[in-house]
Amino acid sequence: MAQKPLDVLHSSLESPVLVGLKGGKEYRGTLKGYDIHMNVVLQNADELKEGNAVRRLGLVIIRGDNVVFISP
Amino acid sequence: MAQKPLDVLHSSLESPVLVGLKGGKEYRGTLKGYDIHMNVVLQNADELKEGNAVRRLGLVIIRGDNVVFISP
Amino acid sequence: MAQKPLDVLHSSLESPVLVGLKGGKEYRGTLKGYDIHMNVVLQNADELKEGNAVRRLGLVIIRGDNVVFISP
Amino acid sequence: MAQKPLDVLHSSLESPVLVGLKGGKEYRGTLKGYDIHMNVVLQNADELKEGNAVRRLGLVIIRGDNVVFISP
Amino acid sequence: MAQKPLDVLHSSLESPVLVGLKGGKEYRGTLKGYDIHMNVVLQNADELKEGNAVRRLGLVIIRGDNVVFISP
Amino acid sequence: MAQKPLDVLHSSLESPVLVGLKGGKEYRGTLKGYDIHMNVVLQNADELKEGNAVRRLGLVIIRGDNVVFISP
Amino acid sequence: MAQKPLDVLHSSLESPVLVGLKGGKEYRGTLKGYDIHMNVVLQNADELKEGNAVRRLGLVIIRGDNVVFISP
Repeated sequence: MAQKPLDVLHSSLESPVLVGLKGGKEYRGTLKGYDIHMNVVLQNADELKEGNAVRRLGLVIIRGDNVVFISP
Repeated sequence: MAQKPLDVLHSSLESPVLVGLKGGKEYRGTLKGYDIHMNVVLQNADELKEGNAVRRLGLVIIRGDNVVFISP
Repeated sequence: MAQKPLDVLHSSLESPVLVGLKGGKEYRGTLKGYDIHMNVVLQNADELKEGNAVRRLGLVIIRGDNVVFISP
Repeated sequence: MAQKPLDVLHSSLESPVLVGLKGGKEYRGTLKGYDIHMNVVLQNADELKEGNAVRRLGLVIIRGDNVVFISP
Repeated sequence: MAQKPLDVLHSSLESPVLVGLKGGKEYRGTLKGYDIHMNVVLQNADELKEGNAVRRLGLVIIRGDNVVFISP
Repeated sequence: MAQKPLDVLHSSLESPVLVGLKGGKEYRGTLKGYDIHMNVVLQNADELKEGNAVRRLGLVIIRGDNVVFISP
Repeated sequence: MAQKPLDVLHSSLESPVLVGLKGGKEYRGTLKGYDIHMNVVLQNADELKEGNAVRRLGLVIIRGDNVVFISP
């Protein structure tokens, strides 16, 4: 059975996800929410560069149009 | 329970937020308002470069389509 | 009470504003009008580079999708 | 009284305007028409680089999503 | 009387036009059709670089969102 | 009689087409399908760089918003 | 008979696909789902650079507006 992208996102609520953005930045945190634009809310989020945490952002809203991928 | 991105934004009204934009600029200020496009109004806003305030803008409207993240 | 971005813009009519665009150009002038796309009309507008006026444009319509911020 | 951006554009019909585009090119000509996307029609249009006419285009339709500013 | 951009385009059917794109490429050919997105159809189209034909494409559909200007 | 861009695309079904993308990549293959966004399906598609096939993709869906031109 | 792009995508469910993104990154994995925006879900996905797997992402949602091509 096919898995709709937003359904997969829904299944990832409360789980750790990796969010890749245009330009190469990545964020890792616990997915707390999302909407149909793929705006997402992460908790305990770290900003990563080349896989390493370079800044702790804590709670963060990421605007969907920057998102390249979300990996649960 | 899931937290919709705009609900998290709403909960941050009157609180300090960090707003990251495309291109790397960041703004820090008190969130005074927002709309569904993630246009936001900041009060006592500073423009930051690499974490340091480089300009005081005071009251500022930021257009949502430039926003990468908003961190309460 | 929350301040909607367009309400703040409305309150700034006839007042001087600083408009920052994608790519870094900025314009300073008196806000004479706007619409829901954040297209704005400035009067006595100067184009700025690094804070200095480099060109007088007078009356100018700025297309909203270039706007990064508007600061009253 | 506030001046809507498209009303200012309408008032500029048959008058010379300067149109600045993303990427820095500018066009100068007589505004012959426009629509709600800020697509514009210029007559006797010159393409400018750093203020100097580098090419005569004559009649030209400019697609609105390239427009940064229009100055009557 | 104002000339709507799409009306000017309509008047140019079967005539030679120059189409300038984002990024600087230009195409010259006979305008055979268009739609409201400014998608255009050119016949006997040449791709130009700095005014010189560098490739003959013949019949070509150009997607409107790349178009900067169309000059009849 | 004017030729609508999508009609020209329709007439090119089952024929070889050259598809130019933003950024300069081009694809050559047999047009098997399309939709109103100019998403296209190519069969026996090759990716080209400067006119030379650099990779065989076979069946490929190209997302319309990357398309600069399609030449039958 | 013409093949609509989304129909081709539908036929590729549960099959390996190569997804090319703006900026040049590519992902290879099993297509588990998609939606009308060409958001896709890949399983056992690898991120590729110049054809070589550089990172295993496993399950990943790719946002459609980054997609250049999808090749089944």
